[in-house]
Amino acid sequence: MKNFVLKGTILYTEEKDHLIAAKDSYVVCQDSLCQGVFARLPECYQHFEVIDYGNNLIIPGLTDLHVHAPQYTVCGFAMDLELMPWLNACIFPEEAKYADPGYAREAYSVFVRDLKHSPTTRICTFGTLHTEGTLELMRQLEEAGFHGCVGKVSMDRNAPEALSETNGEKNLLDWLSQCHFEHIHPILTPRFIPACSDELMTSIGRIQKETHLPLQSHLSENPAEIDFVKELCPSSAFYGDAYDRFGTFGTNGSTIMAHCVHSGEAEIALMKQNNVYVAHCAESNFNLSSGIAPARRYLDAGLHMGLGTDIGGGTSVSMFRSIKEAVIASKMYWRLLDSTKAPLLFSEAFYLASKGGGSFFGKVGSFEKGYEFDAVVLDDSRLRAPRDLSPQNRLERVIYGDNCDVVTDKYICGEKI
Amino acid sequence: MKNFVLKGTILYTEEKDHLIAAKDSYVVCQDSLCQGVFARLPECYQHFEVIDYGNNLIIPGLTDLHVHAPQYTVCGFAMDLELMPWLNACIFPEEAKYADPGYAREAYSVFVRDLKHSPTTRICTFGTLHTEGTLELMRQLEEAGFHGCVGKVSMDRNAPEALSETNGEKNLLDWLSQCHFEHIHPILTPRFIPACSDELMTSIGRIQKETHLPLQSHLSENPAEIDFVKELCPSSAFYGDAYDRFGTFGTNGSTIMAHCVHSGEAEIALMKQNNVYVAHCAESNFNLSSGIAPARRYLDAGLHMGLGTDIGGGTSVSMFRSIKEAVIASKMYWRLLDSTKAPLLFSEAFYLASKGGGSFFGKVGSFEKGYEFDAVVLDDSRLRAPRDLSPQNRLERVIYGDNCDVVTDKYICGEKI
Repeated sequence: MKNFVLKGTILYTEEKDHLIAAKDSYVVCQDSLCQGVFARLPECYQHFEVIDYGNNLIIPGLTDLHVHAPQYTVCGFAMDLELMPWLNACIFPEEAKYADPGYAREAYSVFVRDLKHSPTTRICTFGTLHTEGTLELMRQLEEAGFHGCVGKVSMDRNAPEALSETNGEKNLLDWLSQCHFEHIHPILTPRFIPACSDELMTSIGRIQKETHLPLQSHLSENPAEIDFVKELCPSSAFYGDAYDRFGTFGTNGSTIMAHCVHSGEAEIALMKQNNVYVAHCAESNFNLSSGIAPARRYLDAGLHMGLGTDIGGGTSVSMFRSIKEAVIASKMYWRLLDSTKAPLLFSEAFYLASKGGGSFFGKVGSFEKGYEFDAVVLDDSRLRAPRDLSPQNRLERVIYGDNCDVVTDKYICGEKI
Repeated sequence: MKNFVLKGTILYTEEKDHLIAAKDSYVVCQDSLCQGVFARLPECYQHFEVIDYGNNLIIPGLTDLHVHAPQYTVCGFAMDLELMPWLNACIFPEEAKYADPGYAREAYSVFVRDLKHSPTTRICTFGTLHTEGTLELMRQLEEAGFHGCVGKVSMDRNAPEALSETNGEKNLLDWLSQCHFEHIHPILTPRFIPACSDELMTSIGRIQKETHLPLQSHLSENPAEIDFVKELCPSSAFYGDAYDRFGTFGTNGSTIMAHCVHSGEAEIALMKQNNVYVAHCAESNFNLSSGIAPARRYLDAGLHMGLGTDIGGGTSVSMFRSIKEAVIASKMYWRLLDSTKAPLLFSEAFYLASKGGGSFFGKVGSFEKGYEFDAVVLDDSRLRAPRDLSPQNRLERVIYGDNCDVVTDKYICGEKI
């Protein structure tokens, strides 16, 4: 447990439509928790060490709520394809390579190294179906100081032989029994309905009911995928219902569903009822020609929502890019599809990347009192300007410019990593 | 005039739907012109110096066909606004600052420095309406080794007083008389119809008729702007017609129109007839909520087209980003607006950024024999991978990842800059 103070230009959100900016201010960490932001350091913290970051920006750590770490090795490849052919041509052959622990070790070291230099502090990532490789990813994230969830992928149909389990339940329990990490927790990870038999989904549903482990999967991403689910599950009323029938749609534990691009009224209502988190992955939905998720509609409906890079549908570990693309997507949704759904403000997209996604882990993603102390320091002096800029303009320039290289120091739950 | 050979993994396009990749190959420069790409160096070039870039990638230089250099200082600011309010709140006050030559010098030095580290070799940029500041931009680009066009902006209405000329023709002629640069040429630059009186447009039309100078402006970008043009020019059949009436729509000299997001049939037909270039600026059209230009339709119609960053509607000097966003925009156009307009392939967007836009300057943007020798060397070794990657995958990774920092060396018309 560490007590210290960071000094600099502090930016964060409490409410989604307002970015708070405090120049030359102090943010206090006591016992890993944030004590708030102060223009003058209160008497009671005067004995804490003050780390003075001068004119640098200090923002809350960002949460990447949906990402496939093993796909980092094929970032940007074959983006002329849509989701299903891309999975078959590019992703499945790559993920099969992670059967080799040596390959997994090297590949994940690239991912974790780049993640360290990004503004991300919390992460929910898919591994592959391989136990050893997934444990390796967990080990590397833990050693690097990250907090978050990693899932061994469960899948047993409609995939190449190398990526089809024959004993999915046993494999899952075997992996769970080996998850002994302090800050990286296991998360149940049925790939998506097309890749999971009823038997496997039944097992996962039972395990979640017994363990209350969190769960992550994909939902209503791409028209061809949704059609395939209809074909596979003729008795399900909608895609989310196909999860719900196995108790894996938020009723037995915290649940993240990535994408939700084409969710209808009934699906949205069930997500709301079951407290399902939407992981909004705008860049990936662009790249795979899936469409645009109605983020404003989800905000208005009061759904839980965060942002995800969705590597390798997304092409960067940068949550700055996820913020930018979420804003862009909402603008095109407003312009092209529904003029009653106002574009996301910059502050709203920033909120989703920090406090919105962070809330999956509890009080995470803000500098309000009582929040776990995740902070990212940005030295934007490289981005020269011929005049003084406001703190908000400086943050906009960093984020819209996707200038990840300005990340210098990072604190996760009070620990400098 | 220099003769030399670059060796490396060479990628370029001749036709738009095919990316040519040549590993361990040679591209030859003789008297500033490309002599072609060779797997073995022909006898006749054996006495040329060979610069061996090992495993690095070598691509043609990219052309930024539409950019506002003075807006680089406000990149990413106030993107919650649409075009017209953004111009008034953010852009016009910034451009007014360029009345101060000292401010212009410092601001442009930031832009030119970052442009040097980008994959851009040719550029068509707006300055401001200030003669001295615009000459300063031209001087800096010339000294940095770039080739391209710079325009002193002409504008005399619907702008703050500081940005309204009282003697536009005289100012323009005065500026033209001072343009003595080798590789940076003047281009006529009426800001756009809303900011240019009939009198000013008449002058510009006459000057173009007499000088055959090229011209750049904006066309059919944003619905509110288009409505404003209708109001200002009730007798014009469409936005492009409002230019054409003054002879400034391609009839009297090469002409670039930026955006063309909402061009109708008649406007497209006139662009085709008059050989008008479309500068497609997908990211800017996203950021300012303008919409999506139908790039596939323009390709099918055989229009001349290149890509532009459109700083400050765009947020980076990186043409890699322009390529990526052009692909994304075309995917959303296909998915959301017109399923008969296929998304741009990666190779097509790369073609537009290299040979498509480059053709505005002649034989520029390819490694075919006779092309001016513009080349960019990419050292992507920082982007680690656990296995060997194909040349195309490596280029995709660089471009979709928007990894501008891999640019190492750059040659423009045979000169290393």
